[in-house]
Amino acid sequence: MGIKEIRTALKVDLNKHAREQPGLHNRWHPDIPACGKIANNEVVKIECLDWTGGQIQNNDSAEDVRTVDLTEIHYLSGPFDIETAEPGDVLLVEIQDVQPFQDQPWGFTGVFAKENGGGFLDEIYPKARHIPGVRFAGLIHPGILGCAPSAEVLAEWNKREGELIAANTVDGRVVAQPPQPMNSHAGSATEDIKDKVAKEGARTIPGRPEHGGNCDIKNLSRGSKVYLPVHVPGAKFSVGDLHFSQGDGEISFCGAIEMAGVITLKFTVIKNGMAKMDMKSPIFIPGPVEPQFGPGRFLTFEGFSVDEHGKQHYLDATVAYRQTCLRVIEYLRRYGYSDYQIYLLLSCAPVQGHIAGIVDIPNACTTLGVPMDIFDFDIRPEADAVKRDMGSCAFASE
Amino acid sequence: MGIKEIRTALKVDLNKHAREQPGLHNRWHPDIPACGKIANNEVVKIECLDWTGGQIQNNDSAEDVRTVDLTEIHYLSGPFDIETAEPGDVLLVEIQDVQPFQDQPWGFTGVFAKENGGGFLDEIYPKARHIPGVRFAGLIHPGILGCAPSAEVLAEWNKREGELIAANTVDGRVVAQPPQPMNSHAGSATEDIKDKVAKEGARTIPGRPEHGGNCDIKNLSRGSKVYLPVHVPGAKFSVGDLHFSQGDGEISFCGAIEMAGVITLKFTVIKNGMAKMDMKSPIFIPGPVEPQFGPGRFLTFEGFSVDEHGKQHYLDATVAYRQTCLRVIEYLRRYGYSDYQIYLLLSCAPVQGHIAGIVDIPNACTTLGVPMDIFDFDIRPEADAVKRDMGSCAFASE
Amino acid sequence: MGIKEIRTALKVDLNKHAREQPGLHNRWHPDIPACGKIANNEVVKIECLDWTGGQIQNNDSAEDVRTVDLTEIHYLSGPFDIETAEPGDVLLVEIQDVQPFQDQPWGFTGVFAKENGGGFLDEIYPKARHIPGVRFAGLIHPGILGCAPSAEVLAEWNKREGELIAANTVDGRVVAQPPQPMNSHAGSATEDIKDKVAKEGARTIPGRPEHGGNCDIKNLSRGSKVYLPVHVPGAKFSVGDLHFSQGDGEISFCGAIEMAGVITLKFTVIKNGMAKMDMKSPIFIPGPVEPQFGPGRFLTFEGFSVDEHGKQHYLDATVAYRQTCLRVIEYLRRYGYSDYQIYLLLSCAPVQGHIAGIVDIPNACTTLGVPMDIFDFDIRPEADAVKRDMGSCAFASE
Amino acid sequence: MGIKEIRTALKVDLNKHAREQPGLHNRWHPDIPACGKIANNEVVKIECLDWTGGQIQNNDSAEDVRTVDLTEIHYLSGPFDIETAEPGDVLLVEIQDVQPFQDQPWGFTGVFAKENGGGFLDEIYPKARHIPGVRFAGLIHPGILGCAPSAEVLAEWNKREGELIAANTVDGRVVAQPPQPMNSHAGSATEDIKDKVAKEGARTIPGRPEHGGNCDIKNLSRGSKVYLPVHVPGAKFSVGDLHFSQGDGEISFCGAIEMAGVITLKFTVIKNGMAKMDMKSPIFIPGPVEPQFGPGRFLTFEGFSVDEHGKQHYLDATVAYRQTCLRVIEYLRRYGYSDYQIYLLLSCAPVQGHIAGIVDIPNACTTLGVPMDIFDFDIRPEADAVKRDMGSCAFASE
Repeated sequence: MGIKEIRTALKVDLNKHAREQPGLHNRWHPDIPACGKIANNEVVKIECLDWTGGQIQNNDSAEDVRTVDLTEIHYLSGPFDIETAEPGDVLLVEIQDVQPFQDQPWGFTGVFAKENGGGFLDEIYPKARHIPGVRFAGLIHPGILGCAPSAEVLAEWNKREGELIAANTVDGRVVAQPPQPMNSHAGSATEDIKDKVAKEGARTIPGRPEHGGNCDIKNLSRGSKVYLPVHVPGAKFSVGDLHFSQGDGEISFCGAIEMAGVITLKFTVIKNGMAKMDMKSPIFIPGPVEPQFGPGRFLTFEGFSVDEHGKQHYLDATVAYRQTCLRVIEYLRRYGYSDYQIYLLLSCAPVQGHIAGIVDIPNACTTLGVPMDIFDFDIRPEADAVKRDMGSCAFASE
Repeated sequence: MGIKEIRTALKVDLNKHAREQPGLHNRWHPDIPACGKIANNEVVKIECLDWTGGQIQNNDSAEDVRTVDLTEIHYLSGPFDIETAEPGDVLLVEIQDVQPFQDQPWGFTGVFAKENGGGFLDEIYPKARHIPGVRFAGLIHPGILGCAPSAEVLAEWNKREGELIAANTVDGRVVAQPPQPMNSHAGSATEDIKDKVAKEGARTIPGRPEHGGNCDIKNLSRGSKVYLPVHVPGAKFSVGDLHFSQGDGEISFCGAIEMAGVITLKFTVIKNGMAKMDMKSPIFIPGPVEPQFGPGRFLTFEGFSVDEHGKQHYLDATVAYRQTCLRVIEYLRRYGYSDYQIYLLLSCAPVQGHIAGIVDIPNACTTLGVPMDIFDFDIRPEADAVKRDMGSCAFASE
Repeated sequence: MGIKEIRTALKVDLNKHAREQPGLHNRWHPDIPACGKIANNEVVKIECLDWTGGQIQNNDSAEDVRTVDLTEIHYLSGPFDIETAEPGDVLLVEIQDVQPFQDQPWGFTGVFAKENGGGFLDEIYPKARHIPGVRFAGLIHPGILGCAPSAEVLAEWNKREGELIAANTVDGRVVAQPPQPMNSHAGSATEDIKDKVAKEGARTIPGRPEHGGNCDIKNLSRGSKVYLPVHVPGAKFSVGDLHFSQGDGEISFCGAIEMAGVITLKFTVIKNGMAKMDMKSPIFIPGPVEPQFGPGRFLTFEGFSVDEHGKQHYLDATVAYRQTCLRVIEYLRRYGYSDYQIYLLLSCAPVQGHIAGIVDIPNACTTLGVPMDIFDFDIRPEADAVKRDMGSCAFASE
Repeated sequence: MGIKEIRTALKVDLNKHAREQPGLHNRWHPDIPACGKIANNEVVKIECLDWTGGQIQNNDSAEDVRTVDLTEIHYLSGPFDIETAEPGDVLLVEIQDVQPFQDQPWGFTGVFAKENGGGFLDEIYPKARHIPGVRFAGLIHPGILGCAPSAEVLAEWNKREGELIAANTVDGRVVAQPPQPMNSHAGSATEDIKDKVAKEGARTIPGRPEHGGNCDIKNLSRGSKVYLPVHVPGAKFSVGDLHFSQGDGEISFCGAIEMAGVITLKFTVIKNGMAKMDMKSPIFIPGPVEPQFGPGRFLTFEGFSVDEHGKQHYLDATVAYRQTCLRVIEYLRRYGYSDYQIYLLLSCAPVQGHIAGIVDIPNACTTLGVPMDIFDFDIRPEADAVKRDMGSCAFASE
């Protein structure tokens, strides 16, 4: 309380390549050295790059989005040693604030080429910056936070994801990303550790049950508390991938409004917490400042596990959610939006994606609620729909 | 306005078998005769049986739950001819009230034997009435509402579900229910129509994209508006399966708190609505009276598409939601609840199931938010957990 | 839990005069005999008349509203002896449900003649049933609940209100109602107690700090907990004056939508609670099912303590709230509503009345938020305002 | 959209006296020259001093609070000419963001000496920085915004407030502040205009019905829209007095958490809006990001118009709200807080002050809801209350 300023535990340099900054890293590995210490119960500020590590510029070109190098994304800030944290503990991380840099108040969103990460609807919308008629309050949050895996946990990740890759039955798709030495960044690691991390380090793209990671949970904003399993001494906590706003599912992959910025966190160690709570995956309590539209202000679409070719799937919520997204796109077209504009909007606006029914064979049913109040015009079904000139997103050249 | 009473469009008799009541039916078929007419813009009351058609009694035995005959469930009230409704229109149904019968103020929930419908976690919790320490306000809603399919739509349902049944690759499970003549009830149909309905009529268990049906959307309570596609002249609207309360996913199959009661609906025909809105599946706007706990009062669990055997699945939200449910069960055990108690609780309490991330290969991430305020004690992770004697559910004999 | 039915602690007879029913009473007095016993921790149902004790009929005449006899209103159900409750305890009353009688689903609202109780704006709108274009979910609650005063508390009430009456400086107005023998109803009291109650019993019109009473708090609906000071052995709890819906302030006096019905309550005695909490007036925790429009859906008006004659008042929140109500009336006229229609609407719809600023001399500032979603049309200032034919309320003949 | 940066319409210098900055002023007067032009539909940033104009330092001394010079407070940023705005128009001001200066992330609150402005409870708590056990998300908002009065409006203010001062019947209190030449700051005005403003300019302390001004409405945060009457050509809009957080009523006068910062506003002129809306006072629509605790998380206190000496007042909501505040103070003492700590807490935390009933003679009833979730411990009445060492506020020396 009082006049003590909050310590900044890590500063980043927006004008220097991420790889040259020893407080950043882009793989999950227990041997990446800590870039700093944080006391139990301490509050610190941590600066973060945007998730591309600065590959995207504040302009209207879509070329940089198209050619993002996905081997060098997710430069995370950390890892930090949290004093007194031991394997088996739970690390309580309270998010006290998340802000853009005051002199860099911008963000971006986009859709990748299918061959470059793609997105949830990438077969239908393979390529796409501008969505008029829409405004919403951002619910700023970090896409990624978590503690380092232990060697055992890391080995388990590489094994099970390797098996999926080996057994790949999904027609023509990359189903998971194995360790990738190219552009691996292990912070301030010595050469031999660097090599080890490059060879073994888990990619940061997926969230994983044992530690959380890239969960892209849109509600982890100011006031939230996250409870994270600790697998290594000191916890080795990392954070990054700040989002100005995101919808449930982050459906266009780089779907949130991505930004660099500063996050203020408080750390508290709960001794032996994993056993006490029988914790296998992170849990959290959101903060009280979500945008609050009222339940009656969500135009809500239903989707079922029958795909766009009429094929019936068995209780498949992923297929159902895809269909739900398509239903929104079909509906919003009537106001003049292009499909890509809606696709991006669903990814970055505070839309609510729910599991509605998941037991009534053979159909899973999911819903997607679109807050009507983010639009400048009335989108209720009974209001007249006027087709407007909505311009278009910025597209990459072929 | 004023003194005119609301007309009751259908009365049910709780002391008579559902099959003997011509205003009920338990299959979806265009030829089931309408049991009454409702004017465009009219408000009516419609009485409904509980979803088992009265097979469950208000007692503490679990035998009746175990032996529910699933061939004769979902006796729906209807179908009703809505004046002026034509194929291609959209039927706006406003839910003005849903209430239990004043002299039958009770409900039930339960878990079925795996061989008898099962539930979302039925491999793990195969058999299970009493959950102390918990109280919550009901958000009363109909589990099922929809208009009759056309002959073409019905044929499409039977074809695609038949293909799934034929191709069944899900180890040892019933993946879908084909038409089932036994116990089919076609309302007031003549004998030949009865036979036709028995042979072709679609089961009421799954929701389906073309008309909605059994969507089990917990938010369709007082004040909600539902927009339904119309496939046959007069719409042939049916409703039933009232729930006192339900959680997202209704995970234990008969997971809601099921009840008989009265629903008050207003009907408005939107001419040519399907084309205007490019509508393929129902959409809705919830009412304003959901229980409102505040975002910061949801203890929220994360789950990922890695199953309980450690197997990695590709962006499978169904696997992820299953895991999320398991994480809640593991956590709540520490207060003395049995797994079955928690399983039932998740099914009937107002829990929030969200799609969090569905693009970060290979893991889908879902979340399940449990409102902490429904418990008599403090379930936050940092509060002391005291193991209490929570009794047990009622179990069926083996 | 289980199959035990909830006991009805009091039945009322809608076809019999309130005065002939010994479980009702219409004065606050410690000597009114208890009409029944309720155990600590028991849940009971209690039936209630509407606040006029049945003087208003379900028709379109306004004559009965005009001529309501205010000496015989507020027939409360009770008093009930709560076992173990002693002076100094706090009685926790949990409101589990409030419902209209199933066969009497109607209510009313109205404005009284100024000489007959009047209302908050009765100088401006001295006389006035029909408000088209508006629909809202009711938040059903009891206007009155409280425990009986002790003899000392009652004497204090009569003294201080008597002093106000004696010193009446408010031009031409009735400022308080002294005890009124006419039409006093003391339940099952013997003749001498009846006389005592008639002579000394406090009128039920105002809420009072020592016990609550007629607080007309619109949020005390399903799920609410009320903590009441206990002044006499057994608490002698009474309840009545059910409202289907009300706005903050109940500004037109009989401003709520008034109804008869059934309330389900749970009683728990907190021993010595008044000293523990230093409790001088009731406190409460609302239930979680308020209508939830979202903060961004309230069109909110400001009012200040400068009256309609331009006179500056010193930090007077009552004058400010009056002005705030007038601002809403002036605004809503543009849609074709008459002033009386708006006056009634403000009284019965879920409007939010806040104290905004109360320290910036000389102006108090209050606000009144009108939920825009209760209207069938768009009332935002930037939307086109179309004057419609809104009909009129029912008026009494002169 | 895109890469255009938002223009900063006014920069302030935190190291220079407010009086030396021509873009600031501290009186309301039509002749204060505009400090800049803003286009219709333009979005700009405006920097603001804290309301004391920098008199309070970031330290733990309370002396500076005690000796604040109230003749030179409320240095507002502006006035700004809004292009096309004319008397009779309505100026729509959309609040897009409010932030502290990134390198000045602090604020303060305090209680003044009774002779120096005092506060709502200043007779009871005449003097008083530290409230442990409490944390809440700020709802940052401007305390003051409004357009300049016309000469006629200003004359009316001075007349009616002068009459109140002349007729002062409130025992020993300053009831209003007349124009005060000392320390008047008229921006860039020439000497003769300066003199005129000093002599006639209305003090900025009270909000006033004709233009809003210092309304201290805690909900005017990000996303809010305010509709302001325009009285002079160009509107001459001013803004200032930023609050990090405030409770309804701002009861301790300097009760909000006060701060300097930057506000981002969009301006839109609604031609002839005052007549169209029959607008006499500002109206607004709050933004969607209020802290959202859920109705069931507010411990709510009732107060009535019987003062602390037992005197009955007639429907006086100001007396009732005072009593309501006192009830909270009495209750929260049991956790070890001093009265001053609670007084300050009520002023700066997001507490909800409602008008409950204002027609039931002779008692007005107001309520004050305290969000239980801002406390580190359980404040429900049924939870055990432990008296803690809560330290104390910083006090000024006598």
